[in-house]
Amino acid sequence: MPSHASPALSLDLNADLGEGWGDWSMGDDAAMLDVVTTANVACGGHAGDGGTMRAACRAAAARGVAITAHVAYPDLQGFGRRFVDIAPSDLTDQVVVQAGALQAMARAEGTAVRGVKPHGALYNTLAHHEAQAGAVVRALTELGDLPLVAAPGAVAVGVAEEAGLEVVLEGFADRAYLPDGTLTPRRVPGAVLTEASAVTAQALAIATEQRVRTADGEWIPLPVRSLCLHGDTPGAVSLARTVRAALEDAGVRLQAVL
Amino acid sequence: MPSHASPALSLDLNADLGEGWGDWSMGDDAAMLDVVTTANVACGGHAGDGGTMRAACRAAAARGVAITAHVAYPDLQGFGRRFVDIAPSDLTDQVVVQAGALQAMARAEGTAVRGVKPHGALYNTLAHHEAQAGAVVRALTELGDLPLVAAPGAVAVGVAEEAGLEVVLEGFADRAYLPDGTLTPRRVPGAVLTEASAVTAQALAIATEQRVRTADGEWIPLPVRSLCLHGDTPGAVSLARTVRAALEDAGVRLQAVL
Amino acid sequence: MPSHASPALSLDLNADLGEGWGDWSMGDDAAMLDVVTTANVACGGHAGDGGTMRAACRAAAARGVAITAHVAYPDLQGFGRRFVDIAPSDLTDQVVVQAGALQAMARAEGTAVRGVKPHGALYNTLAHHEAQAGAVVRALTELGDLPLVAAPGAVAVGVAEEAGLEVVLEGFADRAYLPDGTLTPRRVPGAVLTEASAVTAQALAIATEQRVRTADGEWIPLPVRSLCLHGDTPGAVSLARTVRAALEDAGVRLQAVL
Amino acid sequence: MPSHASPALSLDLNADLGEGWGDWSMGDDAAMLDVVTTANVACGGHAGDGGTMRAACRAAAARGVAITAHVAYPDLQGFGRRFVDIAPSDLTDQVVVQAGALQAMARAEGTAVRGVKPHGALYNTLAHHEAQAGAVVRALTELGDLPLVAAPGAVAVGVAEEAGLEVVLEGFADRAYLPDGTLTPRRVPGAVLTEASAVTAQALAIATEQRVRTADGEWIPLPVRSLCLHGDTPGAVSLARTVRAALEDAGVRLQAVL
Repeated sequence: MPSHASPALSLDLNADLGEGWGDWSMGDDAAMLDVVTTANVACGGHAGDGGTMRAACRAAAARGVAITAHVAYPDLQGFGRRFVDIAPSDLTDQVVVQAGALQAMARAEGTAVRGVKPHGALYNTLAHHEAQAGAVVRALTELGDLPLVAAPGAVAVGVAEEAGLEVVLEGFADRAYLPDGTLTPRRVPGAVLTEASAVTAQALAIATEQRVRTADGEWIPLPVRSLCLHGDTPGAVSLARTVRAALEDAGVRLQAVL
Repeated sequence: MPSHASPALSLDLNADLGEGWGDWSMGDDAAMLDVVTTANVACGGHAGDGGTMRAACRAAAARGVAITAHVAYPDLQGFGRRFVDIAPSDLTDQVVVQAGALQAMARAEGTAVRGVKPHGALYNTLAHHEAQAGAVVRALTELGDLPLVAAPGAVAVGVAEEAGLEVVLEGFADRAYLPDGTLTPRRVPGAVLTEASAVTAQALAIATEQRVRTADGEWIPLPVRSLCLHGDTPGAVSLARTVRAALEDAGVRLQAVL
Repeated sequence: MPSHASPALSLDLNADLGEGWGDWSMGDDAAMLDVVTTANVACGGHAGDGGTMRAACRAAAARGVAITAHVAYPDLQGFGRRFVDIAPSDLTDQVVVQAGALQAMARAEGTAVRGVKPHGALYNTLAHHEAQAGAVVRALTELGDLPLVAAPGAVAVGVAEEAGLEVVLEGFADRAYLPDGTLTPRRVPGAVLTEASAVTAQALAIATEQRVRTADGEWIPLPVRSLCLHGDTPGAVSLARTVRAALEDAGVRLQAVL
Repeated sequence: MPSHASPALSLDLNADLGEGWGDWSMGDDAAMLDVVTTANVACGGHAGDGGTMRAACRAAAARGVAITAHVAYPDLQGFGRRFVDIAPSDLTDQVVVQAGALQAMARAEGTAVRGVKPHGALYNTLAHHEAQAGAVVRALTELGDLPLVAAPGAVAVGVAEEAGLEVVLEGFADRAYLPDGTLTPRRVPGAVLTEASAVTAQALAIATEQRVRTADGEWIPLPVRSLCLHGDTPGAVSLARTVRAALEDAGVRLQAVL
């Protein structure tokens, strides 16, 4: 075990799964389920219908992978990737029925929804939009105080904590960070790390030192309990496996946080 | 109290509610909630989104009206009124997520889903289609053994009972019955009773004598615990009120059966 | 004929119609078709499917009412009333297929789509959003140089004119205007005129003098060729009739502009 | 050139393309466009939105491939593969707006929709369902007498011909035929030919002799002008290429029939 690893060190690895709909599929869920400890399962907002929810819940349950509800704007057409100026009360209603549908399917498959992770544009919006953050938190309360998965510094974090909800902060191994701890926007060159060595190094720094190095070379703290991995491309799946192996080699205990 | 009424007599009155979607609404839910003891709430198959589910659950809870999930083919476009030759496993998945979404919303509003009533073409299909009946029953089992509301004689009744589920049989005050206890198809003249006196008489016969008179004038048994009332038109609401009043006058105790 | 009316004066009256979907309906289309000279027909973005498009086209054709395509964000759930941060190229594609569907149905009913009017949040966004304005204009060019209906001062007006498209400016009889010629936002008290006398007076001022009085009492020019009337409520239909009668009494010739 | 090939012999090769929706894709359209002479483009019923329609039209136009509208039941959820007992008038409306949307997009891309091919369950239903056949034919008439692509013997063929529409009969290289000229149902063993040699032989027999050999070994006439190829799997694309090469080797002139 490398000297920088604390024996008690543990980390959750999460990925977005179940992102098909009807006859369409996306990504290699089976491969990613062998890498992660938590699956964020699409539940009808950006993707996900009864069939994909069942398949994802069943596969996750079979591997002992935890499940969160990957809630999103009601925008299948846009895969939840575009901001929708939805009224907060409508957003609350959406989150309740999306996560509720998944809860029922998880129960049907002998497992449970442990938390909620907003998807895509909603995830980004919760970083700064008080009203939408409040709307999502209200839904989580109504869903029986489900924990929220969010980015460090997001407005939603404080709102959720004030409401008494558990919050799981997550980081990204393959995204560059700004000095304030937020992600470098994708349009900025270098925003996405593609070299396996850089991604692995960042994953290790997050897991074992709870910090990342910004583009300026400065180290900033990143106190997260979960690391999000991508699996949308064959290259991404392979990279995810590499990251997992490096974390295991470093003595990091990989386990679901919820 | 009329002499034909037994003191212990009780009946459930149910109606289909929450049948809007987005900005569209349908029917006068508030009026019908003052008439019925059970609300069949649309949950995304033929109608019903997060907003309409919340409104219906909240209003039902405020009046002590019980809730069933009004599941349907996934066919908003056709309002669930046309047969869809859906694969049984897909139908099971649909019922789980539709009812599951409503369960979550009902919990959010401090109430619960007490059973499942199939809607429209699915309701009719369950009278004779073994595979689809099995699919719905499987979903109910997965949803935690939710009771089924069905028509007497439907294939689904036997399938549900074999699976150990509670079944609530229901009748119709405004539909003519055939000698075998099934409904006269709508295309047949006289299939729908429109005169208040005829509808009320049939409701009373069902409630107090558990029987109906067929078009031939023959009496047949109709052992139902619930009576379905329609509220889609202003005339229907008024008729529903008349039926309720007549049942109350006859000493029938109106209460939810689930 | 009142002295302030020029004999050559003419105006188009338009209203939003065909805003149902599936079994849901909205508004009293038949009543409004007797009032207006142009019908903005929903074509699948915020409302409108094959059935509602046919009904609206047929009824408009029967009365000699012109048709524009009422295009919208792809957001049936939100009735096109919420901003969607859609990619411009996706927006262009949406406008082409929405208007194209309506073109085919209009042809089937022996009439034609004469122009395009954006709906709801898209209409508002085109006042200032260059990229989305460009996207809509590109679609109109692709649709065979269909004219655009827009608000005076909207960014889309200039973009459309630069592209060589005809633009029809429209005003509102029942909305207060700001000194810069834009609408007072709905959240501001007094933004919507409700008194018949005020609405009629504004309609007459627009029709006969091409100007409106702002909340400050100042007169500003409003050089529009069409006036939008609302028909979503019984009161609105009645008000629309009153406005039409007042315009006719004032000698304004009411006719479609496209 | 083999002796059995007439010099004037020509055949259309068609395939189903543009079957994605939103962010989802399906099949390898680019590969198939290099094989076929006609592309059946999904237009919103079972698949296909503005973006996929544009991509398919553009790619087809660039290769000189003809386009038909691949209309379907309004059932994205089921990919148009399950029978829907839709009212004929609703079906007509659906076909008009689906094909109409594609017509507009084809025009935007400098090409045109040359005909209509029903998809999936609708295709199969038109073999025997008079009312739905009439509904589709009515739509084609309203769309400006668009030709119909259909299977030999389908009820829709006669209905279309009576309505004065051109009909293009098509055959399948990879499906076994029954003695009456209809396809062996997929559930029957041997219904789908998978060996390249068998598929190629059947394609050649259809192209050069206008006949196929049934499972009984009997030859029956199959007077078709188009051959449908599948491209849903990597193996299917490769097989399609093999069939095309064999047809070219046999001197069959491959060209769009519409």
